[in-house]
Amino acid sequence: MKSFNIVIVGGGPAGVTAAISARNTYPEKSIALIRKEQVPMIPCGIPYILHSLESIDQNILPDAPLHNKNVEIIIDEVIGRNDHVLELASGEKIQYEKLVLATGSRVFIPPIEGIDLDGVFYVKKEKTYLETFKENALKAQKIVIIGGGFIGLEAADELLKAGKQVTIIEKLDHLLPLAMDAEFGDFLAEKLHEKGARVLTGVTVKKIYGSPKVQGVVLEDGTKIEADMVIVSAGYRPNLALAKKLGLDYDERYGILVDEYLRTSEKDIFAVGDCAAKRNCYTGEFTKIMLASTAMAEGRLAGSNLYDIKVIRKFMGILGSFSTKIADVALGVSGMTERDAKALGVDYVVGTTETFDRHPGKLPGASKIYLKLIFARYSHTLLGGEVRGGDSVGEIVNILSVMIQKQMTDMEIDTLQIGTHPLLTASPIAYPIINATADAIVKWLHLK
Amino acid sequence: MKSFNIVIVGGGPAGVTAAISARNTYPEKSIALIRKEQVPMIPCGIPYILHSLESIDQNILPDAPLHNKNVEIIIDEVIGRNDHVLELASGEKIQYEKLVLATGSRVFIPPIEGIDLDGVFYVKKEKTYLETFKENALKAQKIVIIGGGFIGLEAADELLKAGKQVTIIEKLDHLLPLAMDAEFGDFLAEKLHEKGARVLTGVTVKKIYGSPKVQGVVLEDGTKIEADMVIVSAGYRPNLALAKKLGLDYDERYGILVDEYLRTSEKDIFAVGDCAAKRNCYTGEFTKIMLASTAMAEGRLAGSNLYDIKVIRKFMGILGSFSTKIADVALGVSGMTERDAKALGVDYVVGTTETFDRHPGKLPGASKIYLKLIFARYSHTLLGGEVRGGDSVGEIVNILSVMIQKQMTDMEIDTLQIGTHPLLTASPIAYPIINATADAIVKWLHLK
Repeated sequence: MKSFNIVIVGGGPAGVTAAISARNTYPEKSIALIRKEQVPMIPCGIPYILHSLESIDQNILPDAPLHNKNVEIIIDEVIGRNDHVLELASGEKIQYEKLVLATGSRVFIPPIEGIDLDGVFYVKKEKTYLETFKENALKAQKIVIIGGGFIGLEAADELLKAGKQVTIIEKLDHLLPLAMDAEFGDFLAEKLHEKGARVLTGVTVKKIYGSPKVQGVVLEDGTKIEADMVIVSAGYRPNLALAKKLGLDYDERYGILVDEYLRTSEKDIFAVGDCAAKRNCYTGEFTKIMLASTAMAEGRLAGSNLYDIKVIRKFMGILGSFSTKIADVALGVSGMTERDAKALGVDYVVGTTETFDRHPGKLPGASKIYLKLIFARYSHTLLGGEVRGGDSVGEIVNILSVMIQKQMTDMEIDTLQIGTHPLLTASPIAYPIINATADAIVKWLHLK
Repeated sequence: MKSFNIVIVGGGPAGVTAAISARNTYPEKSIALIRKEQVPMIPCGIPYILHSLESIDQNILPDAPLHNKNVEIIIDEVIGRNDHVLELASGEKIQYEKLVLATGSRVFIPPIEGIDLDGVFYVKKEKTYLETFKENALKAQKIVIIGGGFIGLEAADELLKAGKQVTIIEKLDHLLPLAMDAEFGDFLAEKLHEKGARVLTGVTVKKIYGSPKVQGVVLEDGTKIEADMVIVSAGYRPNLALAKKLGLDYDERYGILVDEYLRTSEKDIFAVGDCAAKRNCYTGEFTKIMLASTAMAEGRLAGSNLYDIKVIRKFMGILGSFSTKIADVALGVSGMTERDAKALGVDYVVGTTETFDRHPGKLPGASKIYLKLIFARYSHTLLGGEVRGGDSVGEIVNILSVMIQKQMTDMEIDTLQIGTHPLLTASPIAYPIINATADAIVKWLHLK
């Protein structure tokens, strides 16, 4: 029987980050990471295997960071345990002092008639599945994508680039309905339309038809849309199989129950990433948000605190900061949207601005950028921000994320010192975060 | 005699921002902006008139923001005053209640023999001068640039792109000596060399020769370097002519003396931007930093507080956040460098990281990014950061700038929630600000 001080189950971003963080904090401990996959995928890179990446091998999550940190990798599956000893599928047993579950998530399969037809695919994370997926996508001509969230749209964009005929079907009233406000989703629908996609929103799929191979979908109103491939992108659910075997407390929809330090109902067992239940930072309610960057924040925190609490948690609940690029438009969001503010009954002020991300705007590579901020009207704190524009959106989201986590007020942002450069950012006079803040200040100062 | 509630003198970023901020805060006041230039330039865009911008007209600071905010523009020069009445060169008189000086800076002319020869140019801000400058640069073949700071190097990069033979001479021991640490300046020297520049550091120009037209420079060791144009980029000094006429307190090297709210020694007169003296945020000493983004922060603060203090100042002294792109490398810095830390006697820890700014790194458009952070060893606060890489550097500098201004600690950054995306940022596992922070934490945890 092998024995390690720390054992991590799961080889995705949460597991890897927990392992590295544990090594950084506890240099003298032995650490093992057990995963099922011979070769794990970079989860957010998966849509790009369809076109932008030449091969699936370019999307492998490298083992070098684990090797460099002296973490032993074990390719196996945990099937049970006896006290502090794990039983593996291979028959091997492994003893641990501290166990971290990072078992991730699995695709949600919506109850649609015909969902199990040949030619219906999901954006799964297993390399062998993705090989078949890609092969089928490259052969297909007419592809229907069910679900207008980030992953469905990223796949759509790739398939458009590969010259496919793409139809996107979203049952809510705009694209990215759970992530961003309508003005962003609608803008994106227009851009996808320009790239050749058919975009249907507020529309439900009644059934998928074909026998045995998929031939298309039928909408609620009876409309038929032909397809030789259907990609279902209807979200993910926490992967709880192992947690159930271990007898941990969990919520079926949201995941393994954990405290502020990612400790489960059992001493010595932690859970991080998509498999762990998360709470919204504004309300404390469970949230569905599943992001690699969130998983990583959890992995870092758990890894540092396995034997004692060394790093005091500095973030309340989950904020949700993310970004993407679809149809040549970069989009990002951090914290509360206007729709969220309404749903939560928050008294808010919106500030917006539109400008170029280079100055003068005639410089090569300049893109228009549109930014929307949500402030608490009375306490003046920044609650959320949404942005679309060029590639700088990726880091602008992180500026917003820091500002929200530090509960910055409009007045603080108004007096902020920032850096600008013609070839890299908007003009100092038009700097979007500051100008949208000034817009919000003017609104509460004069209009309320 | 015309009369305005608020008069701003100077049409650069500081003046424009003060005017807009004043309008936002005081909608009922009349506001005028007096400037000498018919057409003001975007200051940081000036190097790019040499090649990247098709014409100088593309670098005009637009008047639309002022027109939109109902600010009257007066093209004239203030030559004196009598109490609250300004006398203009045209003979006109203008009465004010509150006056904001934003008279900017002028080029520093170093005492070098031959500095007044025909063919010696400076990076000035006047459009007519720049027309002659550009005309001469396009005709020249061999160009010597004296000064390896940002502006000299930006001009060098443009001239290399225009096919010129460029020699850069910096008297200190590496490029960007006042802004960044040696490892950044040396990296840049290598890149400029690859682009065809001759880069000399630790070398002083003894004289510029030619008669009457410049023919070259002679170095301290007697070496001659031929040139048909010499560009002197040896810094800027505050433009104090008007402040002197108005009888305000000033420091000849650093500028008009102002308090926390940019108020000069005379009630009702404010000074903002390059003409106003600034204090370093770590030591309270005067600092030479002159940046459009700093000018703008001052303009916003002054404009909001002209009649009473509405916006409490939230930044201590000047941090200095800036970025640039030279020889296809984006570079940026915010706050303290390692050299600064040594000079100030700060007990510090350095954290560094190198990674790609996309994930997987095989995605098109990926660049290597190198980040260096300086933390206070005992108080754990982030003091400064330097970065080089792709275009995302422009906004990464602003993340650092917010973190430093909010005095974030290594532990806070370690538990930060951020957003990442394959096409826009580094991987969540390798996110540079977090990983450089983790590197610093490991150093003080295990090595001190």
